[in-house]
Amino acid sequence: MSSLEHTVQRYIDSWNETDARRRRALIEEVYAPDASYTDPLVEVSGWDAIDQTVQAVQQQFPGLRFTLGDMVDAHHDQVRFRWNLGTPGAPEPLVVGFDVAVARDGEGQFEQVYGFLDRVPSA
Amino acid sequence: MSSLEHTVQRYIDSWNETDARRRRALIEEVYAPDASYTDPLVEVSGWDAIDQTVQAVQQQFPGLRFTLGDMVDAHHDQVRFRWNLGTPGAPEPLVVGFDVAVARDGEGQFEQVYGFLDRVPSA
Repeated sequence: MSSLEHTVQRYIDSWNETDARRRRALIEEVYAPDASYTDPLVEVSGWDAIDQTVQAVQQQFPGLRFTLGDMVDAHHDQVRFRWNLGTPGAPEPLVVGFDVAVARDGEGQFEQVYGFLDRVPSA
Repeated sequence: MSSLEHTVQRYIDSWNETDARRRRALIEEVYAPDASYTDPLVEVSGWDAIDQTVQAVQQQFPGLRFTLGDMVDAHHDQVRFRWNLGTPGAPEPLVVGFDVAVARDGEGQFEQVYGFLDRVPSA
């Protein structure tokens, strides 16, 4: 597993970690201090704002879990991957997303995450 | 059509433009001067290097055309899209790629292009 693929797995872990201290530790492991995270709903940067974003999503979807989807594809300092958010054991995820993350030169920490949504809950 | 979607179309045009002067004009329209372009095969930055990269691909695949694929999806300053490279009229493209491009704040010019390949010719 490459350094980037390892970071992708820890990134998924951070979205699932509801213990505040452990989540923050994961975020500091996954992201560079000045990292930016942008998806269709939020545009934030830095550990504090990213941590608050992850916490808000956890509060919006209590009990749901993030899992890594297909197509983890890394080269140079960039990686793309899908992720799912759903109820454990459910046949279909509620949300499917797709991210491209970019690391610092030669390091595994994400500097930018560019998020997109492939499936969202119908209203 | 948003500014980013317009730039995506001009980006496709730049890959098809074999006239050196017109291609360079398109590249200067599409990319910021210090833009970076990274796909699995090349990692370049700046108009000169990007232009040389496009020219090299055109020489590798003479007569083939780039077309915009599905899923042009833009928000904030980022856009994702698929593209195809194939012989005009052929039922299937030879190469299928996927890019995420990021623009300068509020401007349509690409600052970074993160390219991935979904289909490559078999050896």
